[in-house]
Amino acid sequence: MLTSSVAQAPIRAGKGEGETVGIALLGFGTVGSEVFRLLQENADAFTHRIGGPAEVRGVAVSHVGNKPRPGVPKDLLTDDAAGLVTRDDIDLVVEVIGGIDFPRELVLTALNAGKSVVTANKALVAARADELAAAAEATGADLYFEAAVAAAIPVVGMLRRSLAGDQVERISGIVNGTTNFILDAMEATGASYDDALAEATRLGYAEADPTADVEGHDAASKAAIMASLAFHTRVNFDDVYCQGISDITAGDIQAANEAGFSIKLLAICERLRRDDGTEAVNARVHPALVRKEHPMASVSESYNAIFVESEAAGELMFYGNGAGGNPTASAVLGDVVGAARNIVHGGRAPGENTYANLPIASFGEVRTKFHIDMEVSDKLGVLKEVAGVFARRDVSLRTVRQEDGEETARLIVVTHSAREEVLEAIIDELRALDSVHAVHSVIRLSE
Amino acid sequence: MLTSSVAQAPIRAGKGEGETVGIALLGFGTVGSEVFRLLQENADAFTHRIGGPAEVRGVAVSHVGNKPRPGVPKDLLTDDAAGLVTRDDIDLVVEVIGGIDFPRELVLTALNAGKSVVTANKALVAARADELAAAAEATGADLYFEAAVAAAIPVVGMLRRSLAGDQVERISGIVNGTTNFILDAMEATGASYDDALAEATRLGYAEADPTADVEGHDAASKAAIMASLAFHTRVNFDDVYCQGISDITAGDIQAANEAGFSIKLLAICERLRRDDGTEAVNARVHPALVRKEHPMASVSESYNAIFVESEAAGELMFYGNGAGGNPTASAVLGDVVGAARNIVHGGRAPGENTYANLPIASFGEVRTKFHIDMEVSDKLGVLKEVAGVFARRDVSLRTVRQEDGEETARLIVVTHSAREEVLEAIIDELRALDSVHAVHSVIRLSE
Repeated sequence: MLTSSVAQAPIRAGKGEGETVGIALLGFGTVGSEVFRLLQENADAFTHRIGGPAEVRGVAVSHVGNKPRPGVPKDLLTDDAAGLVTRDDIDLVVEVIGGIDFPRELVLTALNAGKSVVTANKALVAARADELAAAAEATGADLYFEAAVAAAIPVVGMLRRSLAGDQVERISGIVNGTTNFILDAMEATGASYDDALAEATRLGYAEADPTADVEGHDAASKAAIMASLAFHTRVNFDDVYCQGISDITAGDIQAANEAGFSIKLLAICERLRRDDGTEAVNARVHPALVRKEHPMASVSESYNAIFVESEAAGELMFYGNGAGGNPTASAVLGDVVGAARNIVHGGRAPGENTYANLPIASFGEVRTKFHIDMEVSDKLGVLKEVAGVFARRDVSLRTVRQEDGEETARLIVVTHSAREEVLEAIIDELRALDSVHAVHSVIRLSE
Repeated sequence: MLTSSVAQAPIRAGKGEGETVGIALLGFGTVGSEVFRLLQENADAFTHRIGGPAEVRGVAVSHVGNKPRPGVPKDLLTDDAAGLVTRDDIDLVVEVIGGIDFPRELVLTALNAGKSVVTANKALVAARADELAAAAEATGADLYFEAAVAAAIPVVGMLRRSLAGDQVERISGIVNGTTNFILDAMEATGASYDDALAEATRLGYAEADPTADVEGHDAASKAAIMASLAFHTRVNFDDVYCQGISDITAGDIQAANEAGFSIKLLAICERLRRDDGTEAVNARVHPALVRKEHPMASVSESYNAIFVESEAAGELMFYGNGAGGNPTASAVLGDVVGAARNIVHGGRAPGENTYANLPIASFGEVRTKFHIDMEVSDKLGVLKEVAGVFARRDVSLRTVRQEDGEETARLIVVTHSAREEVLEAIIDELRALDSVHAVHSVIRLSE
């Protein structure tokens, strides 16, 4: 009855009450420096909460050089991260470097050496969960990553623990602050995507290379992590359908507004019931139209909001600042206390559990709803022709709005739910019609 | 450096992978029957998540009798709860009876016998946390109570774990669905308190004896639990200032509305900095005026919402259905998985930790703001006289609104923040003035 996925290494004996937990901090950027500062400033509180002192015994940075690192004794600094994580006096490794390949090596080395790891690295966890979980399993080390999803909003803890006795049906959320800031600015000011991105960059909400955020990769990593935990099924970054916001125009935002919607970049994780009665899961990231009355529509600037629907609990919502040094440090330090407490007292965090191992449904299989904005010939019979395309594929329409222009008409169609692949085929067919001059935009509805 | 409050009993060895966890279910009402049903229906999922089967081996009810209990084999039923919890084949006790004295005996007996306990009983946990924690500590058993606060909204887990590395400054929340339903109905329909309560009772939102809800005792239990966890300080039910909603009139609601507020029953837990630089904590429950633009104002019917402000994470909000059989069962079952996993694999949940042991500040010490609605003589100099009462005690006014009536005038004053005891003294003084005919209502502001 039990699969190997629930096997856990025997719990380790604790170091004992009052013993010091040696910490290696990898990375000293915005998050790393906050983690360090708070561990120093609140040392007494950490000692009490853990059961023994938490002592940072090394800080790995790429260049020790002469860069000032306030409050950090020079002899703690090292550029030999690999050497640091396996040192005998290190019990716990905190990884806040970012990237995949370099931290992957370090985290695997640490776990293989039996050191517990706390990481804020969503890209790493989403891309390499299998090997990280296996390494932790083999040595009985803990792997914590609350900060990898929505900073201090405790999504990981909630899925791993609070909802451990429930069945999650769906998660949908705004989990990327950069794109939310851009979309919010476009809606508030009528700015173009390029101008809003430039403003976000100027204010520090977007990085110099904004690709990971604006193309949805960051949100996709978070979707993969959430789906894996929620559905007890390995969902990797590559399994997540991903569409960013760089194609969203000021016109799309305006049209959405007129129809009573805001456009948000959503991460959606969903349990599907197939016609044959079996279940599958899907995770995706794409822009979506959210009704203005929905709480998600009023999530502004770089805030995050996550909705979880489960069988018994119903709908839960979580809201907060999903990024930034302080909120991320809060999540990292919560994990540090959890991992350190296990090091002192013995015991282990709930590990990897992908027992359900459900198939990943392709995006084509998912039921979605389309908002289609097109330009058509302004002549008799066009509406009938367009409607026929939907009818032949059994897709019914929720609303149809036609606005006559000079020589052409604008036709805005909102569908009822249908399989994504059917809707996509309909778009292809519409584009091929002589009477359809252009399909300006296709945006999915959030629900 | 360490106080005895963080001492933990040595972790217990697990029963081992694949071993069955024997469960005693105490109570078979709305929550108990849902817990039982979900454990049966999702048995495979629980086995995988725990690492071994979870088997209900006894259900204690007050009268076994002939009452139909669908799906429960008759031989599981017993009216000997005390005998059940100490049986050798029981590892985990789930208490969903309610009340204090009877479940207290059972939970203590179970913990003393080394059985882990999951309880949904806020009154018990808030009133008896000391002895329950001590009993759990002594035998190394786990005590879980996520369902005691806001059902499946994972407040307990968040405070115990996710924010374990942060410093909580303030919690404010709507944590009682019954009172929220009544206040919501009064605002929506203009109904009197009595009519709204009758409607709540008819629809099952209020119990036959609504005292615990409408007088704020239920919310006060939750405030005590949240404050204890947030501030690492024992805050008991008796430490919580508690004022219910039974004095709120339709006129209060209307006046609040006109001024742009909704009235909500709030539980507030706060860290205070005293003039001498030391810290103290306060927990309280009272009706409060919430600005209509604040998300809390739009929490309707029996939903709950909880705001947590902490040093690093900033403000987090949690929202969901805070009561009812299903959401409560979800929280209970999340705890069951956590406790059962520890029974199988070894390890312990983070226990009681009241190391900070901060003094409890009296309500008089807390800084609040008053909205005062009074009837005064409509003659020259009254406003000056009233204003003088505030000025002499150094309380400045935010807004003053005067509406002239036939022979008297209505005066509505909103203060800036001041110590509660100062504001209370001002109210006494106002009442004593000849020119003040009546102080109709005094309601605090939420912020």
